[in-house]
Amino acid sequence: MDKFIIIGERIHCISPVIKEALANRDPAPLIARGREQLESGATYLDFNIGPAERDGEEIMKWGVKLLQENLDNVPLALDTVNQKAIEAGISVYNRSKGKPVINSADAGDRLDNIDLAAANDAIVIALCSKQGVPRDNDERMQYCQEMLEYAMELGMDTEDLWFDPLTLVIKGMQEKQVEYLQFIRQLSDMGLNSTAGLSNASNGMPKEVRPVVDSVLMAMAMECGLTSAIMNPNDKRLMDTIKTAEVIMNRSLYADSYLEL
Amino acid sequence: MDKFIIIGERIHCISPVIKEALANRDPAPLIARGREQLESGATYLDFNIGPAERDGEEIMKWGVKLLQENLDNVPLALDTVNQKAIEAGISVYNRSKGKPVINSADAGDRLDNIDLAAANDAIVIALCSKQGVPRDNDERMQYCQEMLEYAMELGMDTEDLWFDPLTLVIKGMQEKQVEYLQFIRQLSDMGLNSTAGLSNASNGMPKEVRPVVDSVLMAMAMECGLTSAIMNPNDKRLMDTIKTAEVIMNRSLYADSYLEL
Repeated sequence: MDKFIIIGERIHCISPVIKEALANRDPAPLIARGREQLESGATYLDFNIGPAERDGEEIMKWGVKLLQENLDNVPLALDTVNQKAIEAGISVYNRSKGKPVINSADAGDRLDNIDLAAANDAIVIALCSKQGVPRDNDERMQYCQEMLEYAMELGMDTEDLWFDPLTLVIKGMQEKQVEYLQFIRQLSDMGLNSTAGLSNASNGMPKEVRPVVDSVLMAMAMECGLTSAIMNPNDKRLMDTIKTAEVIMNRSLYADSYLEL
Repeated sequence: MDKFIIIGERIHCISPVIKEALANRDPAPLIARGREQLESGATYLDFNIGPAERDGEEIMKWGVKLLQENLDNVPLALDTVNQKAIEAGISVYNRSKGKPVINSADAGDRLDNIDLAAANDAIVIALCSKQGVPRDNDERMQYCQEMLEYAMELGMDTEDLWFDPLTLVIKGMQEKQVEYLQFIRQLSDMGLNSTAGLSNASNGMPKEVRPVVDSVLMAMAMECGLTSAIMNPNDKRLMDTIKTAEVIMNRSLYADSYLEL
């Protein structure tokens, strides 16, 4: 089985440092955050520019070129609701290390990001939701099937859809977590790829508690067959968890030093 | 669903402190280790006296009375191959906090510990092995079924059999771990109780690595439906993992302070 894919989440316009760097087209903070994440084990980097209604195309082109030229053509997830910006990013994207990921489509208003992926031979993150939070796994599965059929009619490989079950916050939706894990297992049983913004589950928890919750949920989700996550690769506890789960699942060879590798 | 059961493993004759205390009938070390484990969250205490061929009956009686009288009738797992010693322990055992656990039967030479459990209304840990390591899950399941039928013919409640899949060491049997987890899921799907000496998986690993491996394997095993474990409740990382998994599985209510409770 393929190795777990880690999509580094830290180049995000919600961060004041990144927001300012984007506004000033300042390369250093983006390159530094990208490098930190890759050195800790990220496979992909998410590049989130926010809605970027005014200059999204220019910012996305600038950032994609910047990150790929300075970080050995790192594969990227292009993260914005601005479709023109995603298209602009793809137009300058270097595929030598992997296809671009479009972040993200859903079964509602953002269904057309699947068209965008199909037209550009890209991967697309497919959120199993339409409006708001899916009521249960039947609803999640309905949206999953809708997007799957839609993509197949457009000629996409099913492996280029990375289904996101929509991670729910434990503080408020504690009773929904088992079902969430079961949905990841359903996706895995269907042979589908999956991804998740797992740390949403620990939103609002004390900062010393979050890495514990994120790690345990990650181990459980990987046991259920999760194939990738959008996450902070600089959270050592979380990375140690992933490395260990990879050893247990026999996808990387054990050595006494495996946590240092 | 019932809460996860933690069987504290630290009153074990392999420990020099405990070995000496057993030889000298010195109460203090046993009571201290028992209390430490209970304060950290153990539900049961394992009391392992080794083969104890000479004075097993006397030691077991002494220890059972000592631990229960000093630790509020804590329920115990009586752990020895000496059946007479187990019987002696049960003869003085106080059931007010839970039935005694016989540790352990298997599908081979130790099948008669199931008779002992049936005759004494005890719980029995049922190792899914006969001679050595089971080749695969078919073999594990065969032994499980043999023991299940045997116990049912003796009139036991199936919930009083805690099936142990036999934890295998990662260093040497890395490729067997996924199957091990799948077997725990099979037991859970059958509605059976289970237990495991999970830390056997990390045997031989560096001491700073073991808590990481034990914790990740625990989270994965709990996701698969493991219902109890024989373990060190004074391993904080492992206990934090269990508390967190209980929150995720909605078996204990989340509070910001849940790791301190």
